[in-house]
Amino acid sequence: MRMQRLIEYEEAGPEVRAVYDDIRATRKTDYINNFWKALANDPANLKRTWESSKQVMGPGVLDSLTKELIYIAVSVTNQCPYCIASHTASAQSRGMTAEMFHEVMAVVGMANETNRLVAGYQVEIDERFKTTHS
Amino acid sequence: MRMQRLIEYEEAGPEVRAVYDDIRATRKTDYINNFWKALANDPANLKRTWESSKQVMGPGVLDSLTKELIYIAVSVTNQCPYCIASHTASAQSRGMTAEMFHEVMAVVGMANETNRLVAGYQVEIDERFKTTHS
Amino acid sequence: MRMQRLIEYEEAGPEVRAVYDDIRATRKTDYINNFWKALANDPANLKRTWESSKQVMGPGVLDSLTKELIYIAVSVTNQCPYCIASHTASAQSRGMTAEMFHEVMAVVGMANETNRLVAGYQVEIDERFKTTHS
Amino acid sequence: MRMQRLIEYEEAGPEVRAVYDDIRATRKTDYINNFWKALANDPANLKRTWESSKQVMGPGVLDSLTKELIYIAVSVTNQCPYCIASHTASAQSRGMTAEMFHEVMAVVGMANETNRLVAGYQVEIDERFKTTHS
Amino acid sequence: MRMQRLIEYEEAGPEVRAVYDDIRATRKTDYINNFWKALANDPANLKRTWESSKQVMGPGVLDSLTKELIYIAVSVTNQCPYCIASHTASAQSRGMTAEMFHEVMAVVGMANETNRLVAGYQVEIDERFKTTHS
Amino acid sequence: MRMQRLIEYEEAGPEVRAVYDDIRATRKTDYINNFWKALANDPANLKRTWESSKQVMGPGVLDSLTKELIYIAVSVTNQCPYCIASHTASAQSRGMTAEMFHEVMAVVGMANETNRLVAGYQVEIDERFKTTHS
Repeated sequence: MRMQRLIEYEEAGPEVRAVYDDIRATRKTDYINNFWKALANDPANLKRTWESSKQVMGPGVLDSLTKELIYIAVSVTNQCPYCIASHTASAQSRGMTAEMFHEVMAVVGMANETNRLVAGYQVEIDERFKTTHS
Repeated sequence: MRMQRLIEYEEAGPEVRAVYDDIRATRKTDYINNFWKALANDPANLKRTWESSKQVMGPGVLDSLTKELIYIAVSVTNQCPYCIASHTASAQSRGMTAEMFHEVMAVVGMANETNRLVAGYQVEIDERFKTTHS
Repeated sequence: MRMQRLIEYEEAGPEVRAVYDDIRATRKTDYINNFWKALANDPANLKRTWESSKQVMGPGVLDSLTKELIYIAVSVTNQCPYCIASHTASAQSRGMTAEMFHEVMAVVGMANETNRLVAGYQVEIDERFKTTHS
Repeated sequence: MRMQRLIEYEEAGPEVRAVYDDIRATRKTDYINNFWKALANDPANLKRTWESSKQVMGPGVLDSLTKELIYIAVSVTNQCPYCIASHTASAQSRGMTAEMFHEVMAVVGMANETNRLVAGYQVEIDERFKTTHS
Repeated sequence: MRMQRLIEYEEAGPEVRAVYDDIRATRKTDYINNFWKALANDPANLKRTWESSKQVMGPGVLDSLTKELIYIAVSVTNQCPYCIASHTASAQSRGMTAEMFHEVMAVVGMANETNRLVAGYQVEIDERFKTTHS
Repeated sequence: MRMQRLIEYEEAGPEVRAVYDDIRATRKTDYINNFWKALANDPANLKRTWESSKQVMGPGVLDSLTKELIYIAVSVTNQCPYCIASHTASAQSRGMTAEMFHEVMAVVGMANETNRLVAGYQVEIDERFKTTHS
């Protein structure tokens, strides 16, 4: 059964084509990543995910580059090779230098280390760090 | 056996005290987080981790606030309550606004979602995203 | 050292052969997945895991297809490429349609997203959702 | 700073109130979970997440109960206590019996176990399970 | 609905009692951990899991203490507070000293760090480390 | 941009060469793993990580082989193919037999399973397993 293959523009229905057109217009490139071509097997999910992506990853109080660095940090923590490769490229196109990448890696490595030290030593939250929900 | 309790300055040996003194001087505060007090059960690991932390989390080509945001992103992905609480406080002290926090959360949520879509659809890395190791 | 290679029926000892025979009889196919051929390096673990698999994955109050969907959800969350590929095939043989797969992916993606929003916002369990252990 | 507290209807702005009203109408209950009250600190994310949730978790080719079981499977794999508690309650309200819950747990446990056996034994994907992207 | 509460010996049926009796005899203690009391809601899973535990965690070519250290390493990586607490106690009863615990924590922290550096730098497996499946 | 490629000794600067020399002297081999060659893109992180590795992975109250087994357990749990391959080789060079490897896999599988059963059944920590931080 075909449910995970890459859907090209030529064979796509109008709902998928509309998303591809918007990706191209938004990103100012003809290129559609494999991720979107795979999601296109489910046009409703493609549309919802692309709309969320535009809303979430676009510049806000944080610039797009910072958001890409955070995205890389999550993808490295989850060990997603595709996501690391594609968002490293995306971050570079937004200005990430090699030095920035190295610093992200060092922080991600250290956070993954200390997250476990906290768990292993069963460290309780300091009173002053507790969130008051009122 | 006592191996995970919090070590206070008064009962600590000279190696631990030296680290506590450096934390206080570096952070310009008398307060020592529970994390360091727990790690102090193993003075060598305390010292190594604190030295790494100073090197990794200090400002470089990325500022300290951006590094804290990345740290939060990892800790949320790993679901470490202590780390989320303490580094949210730390990021706030470095200027993180509520709006910044919300944007970090949205990116972290979306990255965790799309990381799984990539895995489930078995998306292969686009040729153009492949790293050439030469 | 050979400890992770694939063990074929012809070279296997009687304990492994008995499991392979049972897999073939239970699944009504001659084909033995690479997973079982790799586990066969440790005959005791092969036998225990296969017996558990028969007990856990067989139809109960939940049918086998629903169990396969749950299995896929876990494997996607853990990002295990082999498990995703083999259990997607297995689910398809039990009647999973492309539409079902897409819905599973959407739920898995969303759950992974909201799991992190809950962690980041440090949401406390509603009184009404608390389990009473008495 | 208040950025993770629970937002009650009375203090909420119109965008949040509109979502709360829709949650109440859709779920036919006055009760708003803490999750939504926490997300309401970021009205745009609240609205986006709620709209996605309605689209993803509602009945499709899979019924709502099956989707809740899948949601629980992910939340248990990620070890999110809030998500486990709230979606166990949600699944029960949609008809999950204790027997169903036990079977979900057994599958989730087994999948987490075998995911790691696959990784440790470095099992390669069988030719017949490979997805052809064409 | 009662499906996650703790089942005491007095209220348990014969299948659960038989497991509890075996736990007591095997461990030479009257105490039954909450884990087993919770699993007892599903007697078949309780029995299967206990039998596996006896087979897997008992001494083999690795002694019981080494197995407990490995168990702790996994539980810390997965951030399971119950598992960390109960298996730390179990390891201590088998001879784990504070110094051993500290060394386990340091290795677990470092492995979690370097696992991510490997992912982020997309390091390819050295030819000499590749498993030959033949 | 070159930021993830493998740095060979011949093209490396003095800081990287010093680390490579120390790796060779410490490990009594001319071979430098791809991991170190990739980290060498960031000489400061290379040096810090190598120094930590020497301190953490060397023999202490736990021997080097036990530490390698723990490292494998973490890497399998995190599903890091490179780390599994390289540290399996490293453990073998320190005396890990196939039987030891199989036992590690069985424990890692079981711990990953029971970690999730604990989460799903929302098991609370037994009073006797609670750490007293005083």
